[in-house]
This record gives sequence, C-alpha cells and structure tokens, in this order.
Amino acid sequence: MRNIDWNQLASENVQEYEEWLREFCRIPGVSATGQGVDASVEFLTSRFKSLGADVEILRLDVANPAILVTFAASREEGGNHTLLFYDHYDVQPPEPLSEWQSDPFEPSVREGRMYARGVSDNKGDLISRMAAVHLVQQAGGLPCTVKFFLEGEEEIGSPNLSRFVDAYAPKLQADACIWESGSRDPNERLHLFLGLKGIAYVELSARVADVDLHSSYGAIVDAASNRLARAVASLRDEQGKVLIPGFYDQVIPPSAEVRRAVQAIPFESAKYRQTFGVSRFVRGKEGAGALAALLLEPSCTVCGFEAGYTGEGAKTVLPKEARAKVDFRLVPNQSPERVVERLRHHLEMEGYGDVQVRLLAGEEPHRTRLDDPFVQRVSQVAHDLTGREICLYPTHYGSGPMHPIADRLGVPIVSLGVSYWDSKAHAPNENIRLSDFKETVALMAGLIASFADSSGE
Amino acid sequence: MRNIDWNQLASENVQEYEEWLREFCRIPGVSATGQGVDASVEFLTSRFKSLGADVEILRLDVANPAILVTFAASREEGGNHTLLFYDHYDVQPPEPLSEWQSDPFEPSVREGRMYARGVSDNKGDLISRMAAVHLVQQAGGLPCTVKFFLEGEEEIGSPNLSRFVDAYAPKLQADACIWESGSRDPNERLHLFLGLKGIAYVELSARVADVDLHSSYGAIVDAASNRLARAVASLRDEQGKVLIPGFYDQVIPPSAEVRRAVQAIPFESAKYRQTFGVSRFVRGKEGAGALAALLLEPSCTVCGFEAGYTGEGAKTVLPKEARAKVDFRLVPNQSPERVVERLRHHLEMEGYGDVQVRLLAGEEPHRTRLDDPFVQRVSQVAHDLTGREICLYPTHYGSGPMHPIADRLGVPIVSLGVSYWDSKAHAPNENIRLSDFKETVALMAGLIASFADSSGE
Repeated sequence: MRNIDWNQLASENVQEYEEWLREFCRIPGVSATGQGVDASVEFLTSRFKSLGADVEILRLDVANPAILVTFAASREEGGNHTLLFYDHYDVQPPEPLSEWQSDPFEPSVREGRMYARGVSDNKGDLISRMAAVHLVQQAGGLPCTVKFFLEGEEEIGSPNLSRFVDAYAPKLQADACIWESGSRDPNERLHLFLGLKGIAYVELSARVADVDLHSSYGAIVDAASNRLARAVASLRDEQGKVLIPGFYDQVIPPSAEVRRAVQAIPFESAKYRQTFGVSRFVRGKEGAGALAALLLEPSCTVCGFEAGYTGEGAKTVLPKEARAKVDFRLVPNQSPERVVERLRHHLEMEGYGDVQVRLLAGEEPHRTRLDDPFVQRVSQVAHDLTGREICLYPTHYGSGPMHPIADRLGVPIVSLGVSYWDSKAHAPNENIRLSDFKETVALMAGLIASFADSSGE
Repeated sequence: MRNIDWNQLASENVQEYEEWLREFCRIPGVSATGQGVDASVEFLTSRFKSLGADVEILRLDVANPAILVTFAASREEGGNHTLLFYDHYDVQPPEPLSEWQSDPFEPSVREGRMYARGVSDNKGDLISRMAAVHLVQQAGGLPCTVKFFLEGEEEIGSPNLSRFVDAYAPKLQADACIWESGSRDPNERLHLFLGLKGIAYVELSARVADVDLHSSYGAIVDAASNRLARAVASLRDEQGKVLIPGFYDQVIPPSAEVRRAVQAIPFESAKYRQTFGVSRFVRGKEGAGALAALLLEPSCTVCGFEAGYTGEGAKTVLPKEARAKVDFRLVPNQSPERVVERLRHHLEMEGYGDVQVRLLAGEEPHRTRLDDPFVQRVSQVAHDLTGREICLYPTHYGSGPMHPIADRLGVPIVSLGVSYWDSKAHAPNENIRLSDFKETVALMAGLIASFADSSGE
C-alpha cells in the first residue's frame, strides 16, 4: 500500500465523511447531564456496523456505556498487528448558549470551518479515524486489526475508564494506540503528544462551629476561613514549589532525551503571557524554561475557595465553615492516592488534622517513551503525509485518562487529531478547519496502512 | 425629686408608652433599603413635639437625616446640665421572613413579650427614654436639659455620623450620654457597657491575569486564589495573634482597674462554646480569661473569601482574581486608618504589594473610664431602681459609633436599655419583655431626675 496517495483519496471522499461528522455533531451527547448518550451509542454502532465492524457495547453499572469496535485485518499478514484508537463520544455542555454564533448542535460551515459543540473535542478526531478505515478498505483492505475504544465519560473525568479496562482488558489488547486530541499551532506546525499529566483534585473543608458567629468573636474563635486559608497557604509557595513533605518523592526526573525534546519545541512565552494578561510566569521563566516547567513539573492550584460573605459591602460574620478545591497536576510516577496520603499527613503535621480531604477526581500520569518505534513511525507518517513541521511533546500539560490504557494494556500512545490553535474546545464556537479534517483522514489512513509491515519492530 | 417612686409611676403610664412603641414598630425603617426613613422621621418629630421638645432635622447630602431633639430644663438650677441620649431610628432588614412567627412590622404581644423588627434594637430603648421624659415632666418637670441625637444609618455602619457630629457639634454639647443597647443575662443581671471596639473592615483583592486559565497552567502561573490565601494567612496565627508588624503599637494596655472589672463579670465560657458548637477558644481560654480576650484584645477575622469555582464537583480553573473580606476589631487607641496603613505595609513587605486593599467600614474604639462619676451614678441608679445585680463592662466586644460622640464631644457614655439575653436583635422574632420595657422607663426617669443635683462632680 506504499504508493497510494492518501491525500488524493481523502479529497475524493471527504464530502461523505463531512456528512458523517455533521450527523454525529447533531447529537448532543452531554455526559454532564446524560443528554444524548443513547443516541450517540446508537449512531456509532450503526455507522461502524455499516463499515463491517464488529461492535460490542460494554456496560458497567452506573457508567455510560463504552463501545468496543473491531475491524478484522483484511489480509493474512496483518492479523498479528492491532492498532487501537481511543476516542470519546461525549461532549462538554454547550453553555453559555448566547455566545454561540450558530446552534451548537446544528453544525454550520463558515469560511472553511465547521462550528459545533464537540467538533474539535473529539468528534472530528473520531470521524476522521472512522473515515480512514473506510479509505483503507477501499484501497485494498486493512493490513492490520483496527480497534476503537470509545468511552462516554471523558468530559466528566473518565471516572470508570479503569474499571472498563480491567473488565475488558483481553478484548482491548493492541500493539499501539492513537489518542484523541493533538493540534496545529499558529505557525501550522503539527503537535503530537506522548503523554498526559495526572491529577488529584481534592476538596478541603474546615469547620469550627455549628453556626456562623458574629465576627466580634474572632478574638476568641479561629474562623474556618482563617484556618483554611492558612492550611491552603501551607501547600505551595510563590515559586510554584509544593511544600508538602514527600510530594516529590515519586517524581522521576525527566531524562536528557525528554529535556532535549522539550527544548526543541518553540514556545513563545511572552505571547502567552500577553494573551493571558499575566505579567510574569513563576521564577521569571520564559521560552523553553517556561515550557519545561509547564510540561514536566507537578503543580498545586487552588481552583476555588468559598467562605462566609462574598456579596457587596461589609457583613461582619465569622464563618463556621470554609471549602477549597485544590488541583494537583502530577508527573510520572506520582499517583493521586499517594499525593492525598501525603497531603493528609502534611495537614496533620501542620496542625490541620481537622481539615477534611475529599478526592473528587484522580488520574495517574503517563508518558510514552520518545524512543518507542511507534512514536518514530507516527512522526514520520505525519511529516510525510502533511508536509508539516512536527512538534513532538513528551507530554501534554493537561491531564487525562491515558494511564489505564497505556500502562495496563502496555501500549505506546500518540495523540494527534483534527484541531488547530483556535478550535475553542470546551468554549463557545468550537470549530475545526475542514482542510485539517481532510488532512487528518489521509494521515490516519496512511498510519493504518503503515501499521502492516513492522509494527512489532 | 428624690422621693418619687418611678417604678410605680411607670406602671401607671406604661400602657400608653407601649402604644407609642407599637406605633413606632409598625414603621419599617430599613436603612439598608431606604424603606420607611421619611415615615420614621415624621413619627418621631411629631411625637417629640407633642411632648414639648424642640426638634431639628439635621441633613447632610447622601445621608439619611438625623434628628436632634432638645427638651429644655423646667427648673432654673438644671439649666447647666445636659443629658444626651444616642439612639437610631433605623432597623435591620426583616429577612428571612418565613422564620417570623408574626409580621415583623405588626407588633405582636405573646406571653409578656412584644415581637417586632427593631423592638429590641433599638426602638424599645428610644421609646423608653422618650417615655421617661414624659414621666419626669409629669412628676414636676425636667431638672436638666435632655437631648436626643437620633441617626438613621446605624444598621449600615453609621457612615455619616462623624460628619453629623462635626457639623453640629455645638448643638450636641452635653455633659454625659446614655447609649442604646445593654441587656439582661439569663441570671437577670443587668449589663451596662462603657465602650465599644473599633473596626477596620477591608476588602483584599488579588488579580494575576485578565482571564481565568485552565488549571494546568498552575505549573507556571501563581493563581490569584493561592496568592490571596497566602496573603490572608500571613495576617493572623492560630492563637489569634495578628502578625502585621506595628498592629499592636497603638494598643494601650488595659489598666488594672479594667482587668479587675472584667474579672468580676461572670462568663460561662463552656456554655458559649456549647451553644456555638466550638470545641476550643483560642489558647484554650475559659471563663474570665476568655472574656478578657473577647473584650480587650483586637482581632482579625476573614469574614469572606471568594475565588474560582465553588459549585459541586471538580472544575479545573485557575482563578484570575480572588477577594477576601477581613474584619479587624480594634481597641484603644488603634485607628482604622493606621491599621490599614500597617496592613498595606505588611503586604508590601511580604511580597503582596499587588494585593489591593479597600477600607469598607471603619470605626474607632472608645472606652469611658470606669471611675467617671457618671458611670458610678448610672450604676447606682440602675441598681437602686431595678434591684438587679449590675455587670459593668469596660467595653462591649462589638463595634459601633461611640467614638465620634464620646471623644469629639468629650462626654462619658454608658450603654443600657430594654433588651434581655433572648431578644434576638438582627434575627427573626426579635422581641423584648414588656416588664423590662417598664423597668427601663422607670430607670431612665430616675436617671434624668438624678442628673439635676451634681452632674458636674
């Protein structure tokens, strides 16, 4: 299949694929509300079956169903190789609706871009991969087994993904995995990601009384607000260093190779600061130094803090309770459980043993090795088929559920997809460029085709 | 007038006075909303005039009008002595309405108690004093000049009281002042207060970006929430000690006399802790030690803290801004301006020079001296006329606008009034016992009568 022009073939078929995408985007699969879950599963089942796949709905109690799609290899020699696609069929809620220029669930094409909730994250990815299978089938058949694992809870933190992987591990076996996401930057470079950070998102709460008191009692009562502010302040310093003893114990220092890879990625930190309105990154970091901190260092951020009176003017109240949401971003080999344990111990040692800690979301970090042959292969195919400069990120700075797939199934993972720098995932007017969609169809087809000959090398 | 039985005389007239009180309580003078201000002024003007007073409406721009009531002495020898009553005609908002057992603005008498918004704080006080003037007039005429200074903004922090005092100081001149408030405890002791704490109520705000960021940027951005939590945590320790350098510089250590007076006041700290659900006061204080801290020490309390996401579950946001409301209670001779200046300096020294400080309310502390002859006189009259045990507080633990009256006019001040321990000021079902109302009318009459002979001593 080496001489097939996938770009040409994608161009000839793309209108049909856009139609699939449009149809999919009309289904509002909002996992946060449960809206459209069944319709999404139905659409995908029917569409994949029409392409000849074996489709199994995976069910666990109190979880949105996941879908396992299997396309058998068309040719004998490919039977030993399996490429897995990870995607999700759920989307973020579309609110605030008033900021959309068109209906979020009625895809609209304007100036070469398709606008719809989920079109970037990650329905465009999913459909481009489905389309790629179709393309390869047309061009002679699949040279390898292709599986899709599609979950319906990614946008609410994939709370059941580990359970799905545990329950269906044998059926999910593969040699390598292409993840959702990936993007194109303002200089049209293609960003590939080999990992995600982990996360431990906790709620801390302090309670010092049964009732709110008049603030004049502050002379003899330590308010929950004062108390929790001190507890939270003890977690991290101004430079971003986490002050919890043992927090860094599990951190594996990034290899020289990883550091070099990060160094090679252009990062215009001043532009970011300007866009954000941030006068200074921690420790005055700029450029590659800022990017290295962003990608390779764990962090601790207070995402929310609530206590007492927060309206206009003055109310003299001593709050009986206070709550904070704290987000720890983790790097290999930190784990949410271990971080929570160290956090609890730290609070106890600092005299805040009464502060309650509740883990609201936890994901372990993952990084696929830069020298994995699959990584080299994907980079090469991506460069050859798109002609774009490739930025290979050892990890994304965000978090996500790569760990269960990567580490439990033992597969290398690369993220790449249809999006570009202004795709506005999670925001109003989410969109992709249709040229990127077509490019990604071709790229994914090329990848599948390439997966025949030497995936095990 | 030494041989008049004021209790007897009060009993004979009290039904009429209750009627005045009922009428006044029907007027919803809510300063927070501006409701009923004019009607309140009209009622008081008309009522005081009918008793022969000279009534002047004091007006300043953007302030609710204050009222100056002057009753000339009926007898020659009293012309040199003036007793001033401080009261306010405004009340707290009645909300939450659903928790009232009767209409807050339709006074209801049940089991010897009158229920209405403001009946305790402080319409009962005001009418008892008006009634006392009437009683003394009937018993032979006023032996001294009696003035009432009535403001309409006490419940919103008396923002214009200083300006009123500055503008009308000559007309407000007096030899001594009886303040609103004062109470009876569960053991039926009468609590008199000689002072109030000051207050500096500030809003602190931190801003680190123009937009909220994804919390994964916490690795290179110090969130406003983290930043403000650290700034706030730097203000006060677990033991209640304020950590701002210079904060205590202006504090005058309480005299031995003040300490002895506090020591003499019964304070069942365990009962308070139980009622509040507080396991421990700061430094493990109990009894007189706890009361001494409450009355004599300044404090710092975070009344509110708001940043980022505070709803259910996890939202991964790095807040661009955070706000906290912080209440400093002050003792002589601290001043709000000086505290704010030290606070700003402290923040700057700690590296939080970017945190904005806005003073929302400020009042200076005041304490009338325990050995002031007026204090002795009021205590004696109160004990003689009520037969109650007297608890003489060198200061209340709350804050209020005594300072402009006491220190600018140079008058001693004592607080005493109609309320009892369960009067529920500021809360639903605010009430007074009618027996206390009658007692206070007699007490105030006795005080006016006693003010003839030796007020200057």
